[in-house]
Amino acid sequence: MSKRKIKLAICQLKSGIEKEKNLKKAENMVKEAGRDSADIIVLPEMFNTSLDMSVIKSGAESFGGPTTDLLSGLARKTESILVGGSIPEKEAEKIYNTSFIFAKDGSLAAKHRKIHLFDVDIEGGISYKESSVITPGNKVTVLKTDICKIGVMICYDMRFPELSRAMVDMGAEILITPAAFNMTTGPSHWHITSRVRALDNQVFFIAASPARDENLKYVAYGHSLCVDPWGRIISEATEKEEIIYCTIDLDYLDKIRKSLPLLKHLKKDLY
Amino acid sequence: MSKRKIKLAICQLKSGIEKEKNLKKAENMVKEAGRDSADIIVLPEMFNTSLDMSVIKSGAESFGGPTTDLLSGLARKTESILVGGSIPEKEAEKIYNTSFIFAKDGSLAAKHRKIHLFDVDIEGGISYKESSVITPGNKVTVLKTDICKIGVMICYDMRFPELSRAMVDMGAEILITPAAFNMTTGPSHWHITSRVRALDNQVFFIAASPARDENLKYVAYGHSLCVDPWGRIISEATEKEEIIYCTIDLDYLDKIRKSLPLLKHLKKDLY
Repeated sequence: MSKRKIKLAICQLKSGIEKEKNLKKAENMVKEAGRDSADIIVLPEMFNTSLDMSVIKSGAESFGGPTTDLLSGLARKTESILVGGSIPEKEAEKIYNTSFIFAKDGSLAAKHRKIHLFDVDIEGGISYKESSVITPGNKVTVLKTDICKIGVMICYDMRFPELSRAMVDMGAEILITPAAFNMTTGPSHWHITSRVRALDNQVFFIAASPARDENLKYVAYGHSLCVDPWGRIISEATEKEEIIYCTIDLDYLDKIRKSLPLLKHLKKDLY
Repeated sequence: MSKRKIKLAICQLKSGIEKEKNLKKAENMVKEAGRDSADIIVLPEMFNTSLDMSVIKSGAESFGGPTTDLLSGLARKTESILVGGSIPEKEAEKIYNTSFIFAKDGSLAAKHRKIHLFDVDIEGGISYKESSVITPGNKVTVLKTDICKIGVMICYDMRFPELSRAMVDMGAEILITPAAFNMTTGPSHWHITSRVRALDNQVFFIAASPARDENLKYVAYGHSLCVDPWGRIISEATEKEEIIYCTIDLDYLDKIRKSLPLLKHLKKDLY
């Protein structure tokens, strides 16, 4: 049964280095969003460990571990589609940066392993080498739910317009990106990249960040965003811990695609 | 001989429906930019006719007509690379929206025919059917000059990230876009689209608009822009007639590509 207006919540939680506290916080925030009747609930990148590389390594767990068990139960209890941010996923001695997505009945609907790893060295800004710990994924992730089609990617993945387009070509109407831009790239690029991915692809674009914690090694920017297919920000968090909501109006998406028919005007034979 | 710092000028002229006046104005502005030692001079879309569909039709001319003759002479006199905005080009009973680009010796260096035509109908906003007059081009345009590689597209072409990427894959370091967004799409999309094309592709992005004239049928937004490879606006016009300048620093481009290696991190086998 297709629903044309979908309520979506982003839980911008403040992840620290203690996993149990993070999980308790996630549980409380997801339950609150559930009480507020969210159809889709989204957590940020590495919500159970923070972005500190050493914690990511030690906190890795496999599917069926405490984090995914909790998420599965929360999806069932809240009867929501739960995009479980991302966690360090251990499989066969490798660690992936993985988003597990659960259906309303608590079953695993899909998972996305971050494809593009954040290996950068910006003078006077951030230095980070994600590939020293994480193995990249190699699949584009779009899932069909009972209410809409969702594309999922993680943080640095959103820098590559080809990936968003590939998901939209596969039918995605909402692109959901658990992410954690930092205090160098956040102020410069977070808003414009989110807005233009939505605009170019005529989709809703959801970017879910952790809240900012200046005491961590990797300081997340915050400012979780919901952007509509016209490129307009329809909901934005501050840098603090909070839940934000937006309405995904699929009729509005259709209207934009009809009035400014970018997807029809593409000339794929030329590029 | 490669030059690492290039001075670029955008002549944001106020085009009207009288071609002779437009050409005289273009001549004066290009000469002024030349006196200010610009290496590259850029004019806006349909600078010799305005965007009024009936004037576009009646004002069409072929290569070797008064407009391209003037541009060729101006490139030679100013010893600049002249990206001649765009004009309605007549060839074999068809009309194209074409940018003629002249080398410093006045020879034709390249031409780009607008690929994507602006056929839109936005409720409460702009309605336009460019394809009722214009025939689309079908080639991606990158030219190698003695100082840099330039990709050229026209207005609505910039809406399609694939085209910018194709030009960058061909080596473009500067993307130049004579354009005329309007009072619906300009305020909503002009800045963010320009900035994200620069940012995603780690190039300088130049968007040259006509000045705003509220008395015309199609009211251009103005706000010509120069954006650097970090997505930062380094020069911006108001809505009025004026010349703006920026410095294209190719060493800075190299630095950005090295510190945030987006182009290296692309995974073209996956999408």
